[in-house]
Amino acid sequence: MNLPSPNRAICLLSGGLDSATSLAIARQEGYECYCLSFDYGQRHRIELQAAARVAEQLGAIEHRTVQIDLRAFGGSALTGDIDVPKQRSESAIGSGIPVTYVPARNTIFLSFALAYAEVVQASAVFIGVNAIDYSGYPDCRPEFIRAFETMANLATKTGVEGTTHLTVHAPLMKLTKADIVRKAVELGVELRFTHSCYDPGADGTPCGACDACILRQKGFEDAGVADPLAAP
Amino acid sequence: MNLPSPNRAICLLSGGLDSATSLAIARQEGYECYCLSFDYGQRHRIELQAAARVAEQLGAIEHRTVQIDLRAFGGSALTGDIDVPKQRSESAIGSGIPVTYVPARNTIFLSFALAYAEVVQASAVFIGVNAIDYSGYPDCRPEFIRAFETMANLATKTGVEGTTHLTVHAPLMKLTKADIVRKAVELGVELRFTHSCYDPGADGTPCGACDACILRQKGFEDAGVADPLAAP
Repeated sequence: MNLPSPNRAICLLSGGLDSATSLAIARQEGYECYCLSFDYGQRHRIELQAAARVAEQLGAIEHRTVQIDLRAFGGSALTGDIDVPKQRSESAIGSGIPVTYVPARNTIFLSFALAYAEVVQASAVFIGVNAIDYSGYPDCRPEFIRAFETMANLATKTGVEGTTHLTVHAPLMKLTKADIVRKAVELGVELRFTHSCYDPGADGTPCGACDACILRQKGFEDAGVADPLAAP
Repeated sequence: MNLPSPNRAICLLSGGLDSATSLAIARQEGYECYCLSFDYGQRHRIELQAAARVAEQLGAIEHRTVQIDLRAFGGSALTGDIDVPKQRSESAIGSGIPVTYVPARNTIFLSFALAYAEVVQASAVFIGVNAIDYSGYPDCRPEFIRAFETMANLATKTGVEGTTHLTVHAPLMKLTKADIVRKAVELGVELRFTHSCYDPGADGTPCGACDACILRQKGFEDAGVADPLAAP
């Protein structure tokens, strides 16, 4: 019988600044990290290449990408035909649920992380969600993360057998974007590998105008750090 | 703005006897049913054809099949290279977690149902899980279903906006297989369309020896109903 390994973690990794920093924190806390990315028909597929580079740079044990078909349900600017909004003010970004919201995305991602955790006997899942800058996403809130954790421990073999308890970590939950940039620098995340834009050019150049670009720019500015991806 | 439709339900539909009966119950309760099946690399792909026939027979509004890649994680006789166990006794079937358990499968299925519910503004999800004959599956227990429901209402836009409350229905939870057969007959489910075997022949003939076949046979016998799929 495989005994659960108390220091293995599944790290959800989009290739963006937030998930890269979340992975770096898991590594700093001593976890062996198993990274999980999703190919879900997102417009910004360059994310997946970014994720692979970030996983390697931060010493992940392995990196798996699972194909899922969120487009079957439509409903988001990130997967469907709705335009990605541009040049919105910070207050507009912070209010309401944005059209880039993908229905139940984090629930689906965490569910796959749970399957992966059960297979490799991981005791933790790390997710780079943040309730400050993305307050409009319901599945980025602490009460959602706690409810998922409770459900997860009832869903699995290890939960039933009592061999391990799964914890869901959202270490960026209460950080501002500037805090996240500082943390990433402190932990040695190669910022040039991280990718945030919702609507990049064919060569991967950030658009500079979508909500993700605007929040990233402000975060770097507030942290007093130069963004290696910014236009010169 | 779309108002939620209080009588729409997402019905998870594998094409087996249980999910077909669960769908029939949703229809009886007056729901407009949106059926959801998964192509997850299962050995028994004939399930998907069965699901399509069942959805049509029971008057579903639509039937979508989502491709997901559970094989990426291995770990089950239904998706991997482990042999499907045969000729086990009922007591052996009822004890422990079987190798046909797919890690986090119902969590993943319900998460996709949640996304679908949000898109079509459904207020209910129906799942044909059963805690009597499949007591070994952690994600078939009532406490799991309730925890998922709690999490789901924190995960979604409609939950946050308070426009609707999602309920997760598991109407077969406390029924024996014989009860399910009787209920299916009562509600007019075409039993010849339902498919239960974990390891059918190339032409779809049930093996007659896997856990699912054994439980199905016993259910039909106990209910005093002839199984149209049984060998003559």
